[in-house]
Amino acid sequence: MKKIWIVNGPNLNLLGQREQDIYGSVSFEAYYKLLQEKFPQVELAYYQSNVEGELVSKLQEIAHECDGVVLNAAAYTHTSVAIADAIAAIKIPVVEVHISNVTQREAFRHSSLLTPVCCGLILGFGMGSYDLGIQALLQE
Amino acid sequence: MKKIWIVNGPNLNLLGQREQDIYGSVSFEAYYKLLQEKFPQVELAYYQSNVEGELVSKLQEIAHECDGVVLNAAAYTHTSVAIADAIAAIKIPVVEVHISNVTQREAFRHSSLLTPVCCGLILGFGMGSYDLGIQALLQE
Amino acid sequence: MKKIWIVNGPNLNLLGQREQDIYGSVSFEAYYKLLQEKFPQVELAYYQSNVEGELVSKLQEIAHECDGVVLNAAAYTHTSVAIADAIAAIKIPVVEVHISNVTQREAFRHSSLLTPVCCGLILGFGMGSYDLGIQALLQE
Amino acid sequence: MKKIWIVNGPNLNLLGQREQDIYGSVSFEAYYKLLQEKFPQVELAYYQSNVEGELVSKLQEIAHECDGVVLNAAAYTHTSVAIADAIAAIKIPVVEVHISNVTQREAFRHSSLLTPVCCGLILGFGMGSYDLGIQALLQE
Amino acid sequence: MKKIWIVNGPNLNLLGQREQDIYGSVSFEAYYKLLQEKFPQVELAYYQSNVEGELVSKLQEIAHECDGVVLNAAAYTHTSVAIADAIAAIKIPVVEVHISNVTQREAFRHSSLLTPVCCGLILGFGMGSYDLGIQALLQE
Amino acid sequence: MKKIWIVNGPNLNLLGQREQDIYGSVSFEAYYKLLQEKFPQVELAYYQSNVEGELVSKLQEIAHECDGVVLNAAAYTHTSVAIADAIAAIKIPVVEVHISNVTQREAFRHSSLLTPVCCGLILGFGMGSYDLGIQALLQE
Amino acid sequence: MKKIWIVNGPNLNLLGQREQDIYGSVSFEAYYKLLQEKFPQVELAYYQSNVEGELVSKLQEIAHECDGVVLNAAAYTHTSVAIADAIAAIKIPVVEVHISNVTQREAFRHSSLLTPVCCGLILGFGMGSYDLGIQALLQE
Amino acid sequence: MKKIWIVNGPNLNLLGQREQDIYGSVSFEAYYKLLQEKFPQVELAYYQSNVEGELVSKLQEIAHECDGVVLNAAAYTHTSVAIADAIAAIKIPVVEVHISNVTQREAFRHSSLLTPVCCGLILGFGMGSYDLGIQALLQE
Amino acid sequence: MKKIWIVNGPNLNLLGQREQDIYGSVSFEAYYKLLQEKFPQVELAYYQSNVEGELVSKLQEIAHECDGVVLNAAAYTHTSVAIADAIAAIKIPVVEVHISNVTQREAFRHSSLLTPVCCGLILGFGMGSYDLGIQALLQE
Amino acid sequence: MKKIWIVNGPNLNLLGQREQDIYGSVSFEAYYKLLQEKFPQVELAYYQSNVEGELVSKLQEIAHECDGVVLNAAAYTHTSVAIADAIAAIKIPVVEVHISNVTQREAFRHSSLLTPVCCGLILGFGMGSYDLGIQALLQE
Amino acid sequence: MKKIWIVNGPNLNLLGQREQDIYGSVSFEAYYKLLQEKFPQVELAYYQSNVEGELVSKLQEIAHECDGVVLNAAAYTHTSVAIADAIAAIKIPVVEVHISNVTQREAFRHSSLLTPVCCGLILGFGMGSYDLGIQALLQE
Amino acid sequence: MKKIWIVNGPNLNLLGQREQDIYGSVSFEAYYKLLQEKFPQVELAYYQSNVEGELVSKLQEIAHECDGVVLNAAAYTHTSVAIADAIAAIKIPVVEVHISNVTQREAFRHSSLLTPVCCGLILGFGMGSYDLGIQALLQE
Repeated sequence: MKKIWIVNGPNLNLLGQREQDIYGSVSFEAYYKLLQEKFPQVELAYYQSNVEGELVSKLQEIAHECDGVVLNAAAYTHTSVAIADAIAAIKIPVVEVHISNVTQREAFRHSSLLTPVCCGLILGFGMGSYDLGIQALLQE
Repeated sequence: MKKIWIVNGPNLNLLGQREQDIYGSVSFEAYYKLLQEKFPQVELAYYQSNVEGELVSKLQEIAHECDGVVLNAAAYTHTSVAIADAIAAIKIPVVEVHISNVTQREAFRHSSLLTPVCCGLILGFGMGSYDLGIQALLQE
Repeated sequence: MKKIWIVNGPNLNLLGQREQDIYGSVSFEAYYKLLQEKFPQVELAYYQSNVEGELVSKLQEIAHECDGVVLNAAAYTHTSVAIADAIAAIKIPVVEVHISNVTQREAFRHSSLLTPVCCGLILGFGMGSYDLGIQALLQE
Repeated sequence: MKKIWIVNGPNLNLLGQREQDIYGSVSFEAYYKLLQEKFPQVELAYYQSNVEGELVSKLQEIAHECDGVVLNAAAYTHTSVAIADAIAAIKIPVVEVHISNVTQREAFRHSSLLTPVCCGLILGFGMGSYDLGIQALLQE
Repeated sequence: MKKIWIVNGPNLNLLGQREQDIYGSVSFEAYYKLLQEKFPQVELAYYQSNVEGELVSKLQEIAHECDGVVLNAAAYTHTSVAIADAIAAIKIPVVEVHISNVTQREAFRHSSLLTPVCCGLILGFGMGSYDLGIQALLQE
Repeated sequence: MKKIWIVNGPNLNLLGQREQDIYGSVSFEAYYKLLQEKFPQVELAYYQSNVEGELVSKLQEIAHECDGVVLNAAAYTHTSVAIADAIAAIKIPVVEVHISNVTQREAFRHSSLLTPVCCGLILGFGMGSYDLGIQALLQE
Repeated sequence: MKKIWIVNGPNLNLLGQREQDIYGSVSFEAYYKLLQEKFPQVELAYYQSNVEGELVSKLQEIAHECDGVVLNAAAYTHTSVAIADAIAAIKIPVVEVHISNVTQREAFRHSSLLTPVCCGLILGFGMGSYDLGIQALLQE
Repeated sequence: MKKIWIVNGPNLNLLGQREQDIYGSVSFEAYYKLLQEKFPQVELAYYQSNVEGELVSKLQEIAHECDGVVLNAAAYTHTSVAIADAIAAIKIPVVEVHISNVTQREAFRHSSLLTPVCCGLILGFGMGSYDLGIQALLQE
Repeated sequence: MKKIWIVNGPNLNLLGQREQDIYGSVSFEAYYKLLQEKFPQVELAYYQSNVEGELVSKLQEIAHECDGVVLNAAAYTHTSVAIADAIAAIKIPVVEVHISNVTQREAFRHSSLLTPVCCGLILGFGMGSYDLGIQALLQE
Repeated sequence: MKKIWIVNGPNLNLLGQREQDIYGSVSFEAYYKLLQEKFPQVELAYYQSNVEGELVSKLQEIAHECDGVVLNAAAYTHTSVAIADAIAAIKIPVVEVHISNVTQREAFRHSSLLTPVCCGLILGFGMGSYDLGIQALLQE
Repeated sequence: MKKIWIVNGPNLNLLGQREQDIYGSVSFEAYYKLLQEKFPQVELAYYQSNVEGELVSKLQEIAHECDGVVLNAAAYTHTSVAIADAIAAIKIPVVEVHISNVTQREAFRHSSLLTPVCCGLILGFGMGSYDLGIQALLQE
Repeated sequence: MKKIWIVNGPNLNLLGQREQDIYGSVSFEAYYKLLQEKFPQVELAYYQSNVEGELVSKLQEIAHECDGVVLNAAAYTHTSVAIADAIAAIKIPVVEVHISNVTQREAFRHSSLLTPVCCGLILGFGMGSYDLGIQALLQE
């Protein structure tokens, strides 16, 4: 049985409350239950932090005990060399996902420091981006 | 029964022959058969052209007779305002896909004129990007 | 009797259907009839293509049999060195026109490769830009 | 009867004397008489100033007593946020015109701060640009 | 006996007519005869198109039946990722040539998307650039 | 008793009429009365001009007869080295204020030539920015 | 009774010790007492952290229990998309303040990622910037 | 007898008072007397204005009645296309002078819009720059 | 006896495991023992954190109890204004070190926000960079 | 009998020893003998220097006694305005050659200060570039 | 009696032969005699070299035995940090001169690395620039 | 016994005289004696030149007879592709050193063309940078 971690970055703990026109009205906890139901053959685990360095530490830690990561680093996508270095340092595949189509938003959201070290990128499908991220890891 | 077009841009007719370290050794025709088998509930159709304007015309034409497009515009991704305008002009959802992780390649491949007018983007999963693109359209 | 060609670039065959808040709800065919009525002293001719190279060929071809061109190259305005070279190569005056005020839209629409090789530029007056373009050629 | 102001910016009082290869040998006063004859159905008025702030004040002042403005802001086209703000603040349509094809001249003349707040732009038709500007306002 | 294709891009069908101060007064057809006479030991073939995608298709097609290509992509030199991808995808050597010294002309002609994927570059020797291009291929 | 000048730049004479969604519906004259009532211990004076050089002259002139300036240079904020030089040349403190949050508007409004020579900056609090500017000068 | 949080970013715990020519010789604790005395009608609260993600978490947390925030994010002003996202996600007004006139310092301090999502900005008035920030929130 | 105008731009009326470490402690009036004594063979005339457009008008006006201009446009050196256009439009030689070595100051003072249309440039010799400017005009 | 802290930033806890072609196969703990043996006359101390703000806090804290710091801020070298501010705020000398020659790697690793506030920089000597950093501090 | 100089810039005296994967294993002296044999009808001469100014002096000196120059300025290609000025100052044709395809190497090798003043450019054909350069001069 | 060196950079030994439309037809030797006659009260000395480092050495050497330098570094003006460092290192005043108005020529001639370390700059007055340079040094 | 060359670039022959606040008051000769005493186990050799090409030649020459180079290329650090090419061409390790912390000085001193081809970089430790450079080479 494969184990996949979903790792969320800053402010994603507010999903469902924050700017609902961009992010929708579903909390991540509610959506996470749906994912668990849809993928009974996968052991899912979940982590969220607002602290860049804690995300770095988590990625290092889970590298030895899972088969892949679905990562939405949110704001740190655009600024964190440290998370990019962590992804490059670990051996397991990391899929970068975003809920919104970030290329339709502010210019500073158009470039990602993480994509070159991730195996792939999925963006713009709402919560469905996580679902597709898991499927991408199962394809490998 | 949903109808989905897969539209491929320039040089993708060489898949399986060309730079196999980047694009793999499977021809698109062979892969397309696998997709037809995997998604029996979808009517799939396929088009490839090396000519930018023919891709524009095709997108205009199929807009009235299908439910979504999986588009790999290849080189035109980075240079074609005309294809971007065509996507913006039609009403159906278009998913942008790429076989390779283009952010690991030349700088001119890092930005896409198409992503802001597509509903979403999937890149880096080899041929699997097309598979995920179809699933993304089925989720909508 | 003067002969003037109106040449339209990609996606302008969708006028009247596409993004009506920007381009209005009149098809070019309907508007073209009005122009023929307004300028009985001019022999008008019309061509549209989505293919950059076909626009190049058309400009080369009509150079020998007309007195001027009203050109709306649409998306190719911003990307086509080939059309700019064709305009520079032929001897007849070419007036660049745009329906919308492109400077109010995306940054990539703010610069034109064609203006330096055209005799003049008219933009922002809706379909009326074509009308003014014909008058500009009659003034010469 | 419609009233239209023609407003000219710095150094245009030298028309007919200054750099005749670019601007021709006709003074604006002489050309203005021709315009009055050609458009008997329009009440034309004319203002020129070398002072940026006086152009701002004039635009504010005439906004309440005319139907449109044909504006050649000359050098201030490329540097004046203040004139752009004045145009945005008033309600009447302003058409930006230029005598020469400024895109064929120095790089600092290629961008205009005014076009995004004007209804349209006409450039390159010599004195005829003013004529076309009046016709554009009559079309509205 | 070696076979070499000469492939010309947009507007080069006008050679001898167009801007003679830059391109000279000889048509390519006339010059081509001279080349055939000068290189009797080579089977020469010639193709010209104004359409970017047709140049892509031609390069793909001739890759299997010749020993090298002398390519003057003209305007597409500066804008076509698609042609660059085609050159990279095929195995035979492609020599980039230009008639004029493009670095003395507009800034947008100073950079080439093609040179990094060609085996070499020859520019500035008038029609003689084609002659040197053939010799370069014979040296290999 | 302290004397403070409020100096307003171009188009601010239109406050209350112009773009009310950005600037509100109160004229500066009405607001100025409220300020006079709120700060009875301060001698307030007011000047507005659309002419850059007149603002320069005014700043030079009042430097010898007041204790500070609250300056909203409006459009000249982003373009006037001359006003910046005047502020640097005089000895009294100048507080830069803006009604709107200019960083939420066009890119050319994001940088100010004046801030480095002013003692401080206050922006985004509507008319209240002037009130805070006076208080800042009283704190000194 | 209104409740206002003052939130300070990295290194501001050193105020009064660090670079006294820029930041003065008063510790924030001493100044904070003066603010409490000056604004008896406001319930003030104070938080400082050197950790970006802790500032994000604090802003999320206090959003539900106060009427406004005076935020000096110090170094994170220029680098933190995460704090900007947190401000955009919460509903209460946030005033950005800086002690020094940052536009007179290194170039990387001239731009702020936070201003566009704050209601306003106050900078350059020493410790007095906090005082003005509280007054700005009371004006609302 | 030759006639030469000295034309000074904004804030130069403050010479001798303003930032004495940069500009020295001599007023221009005192220095002007010295110049009149040193050059008895020249008819000198002097004009200063803080208003860009008045400088434009003055240059137009004196063009017909003098042999050359020594111009210190101060702040407008870096921002005024209008003054540059005026210099280009008149026939007499204009020498650009600056008191300080502007290349040692802020970056926005390093480029001049005027130098390309002036006959020459002299900077960095204090008040002596005017003296050298007159001598340069006498050499012609 | 001098006290020197070695402070390591994010992902350096993985030394010896991570990308061994770049960073070598020795863990920092093993290397640290060698340093303690080589410098018996120095009291060495060691700290590592993945969290930017914790590095800021540590630098503030140790400033009062040691004679110098050898700092490898890793990824934060390129992004952390906060760490740069902490170094500037403390009085003791900080030597910036890097294991690899970062100028041979990705462009975003070529510039350091920390070097201008450190006393010196040593890079490219593998683990030996730490050794040289200690010697540099002993030279002072 | 025509006389042609081959002039080589810095480090080209190391050909055959230095980076053989880029430059090949033939010394220039050995290759030069082959050229002399191939072109018995040409008087060849050869010069190499590592000093920019010596190359300038050589170009000045040989201008009066030969019919053309084949110049490989190596590193100075990208930095030497002085060599460009020397080429522009002399009357004889200079052909720029490079052994490798410099556009495939570091970005600072992609632009040449020399090409705009040379008659033509040949690059990428190994030592054969010199051979083609001589032929290009013989064509003139 | 004052001693002044005139130091000329690369290609200025060609004055009178090279591009006479830019530099005139007088050799520097002929002009130098005129200067010696005009300034009998000054001991003039002259040096020219095409080698950057020789100009550096000369500046170091003459620093101890003269009162000032008139320097026309020609091409090295735009590229030589080494000459700029030499000027900064020596104590005597150096006046930068240019024969032509370099701002009317290629973009790479518009910026000078030397002006910030020279006492002043004189350009555009033909050979007369040297004359004015000497006078500027005599004024000091 | 190891042999190490110390190679110094332009103006470093002035050490001890030139700008003593930046470079200190010790001449290199005096310091060099100290180095010889400190490292009796190393055969040291020393070379200085102001001429870029002579530094290139020296590096080529000593490559065959020593074990490493400590190089302070001074001004050429920022401009010399030729020295960078020489370092890349030779096989022995070269350590780049600087006396001052160049990142605290002018912007053009912040980037080095040499670091990517050197084995390592040491800067900011005054004369001690040479000492550390030797130690770095001994570590290898």
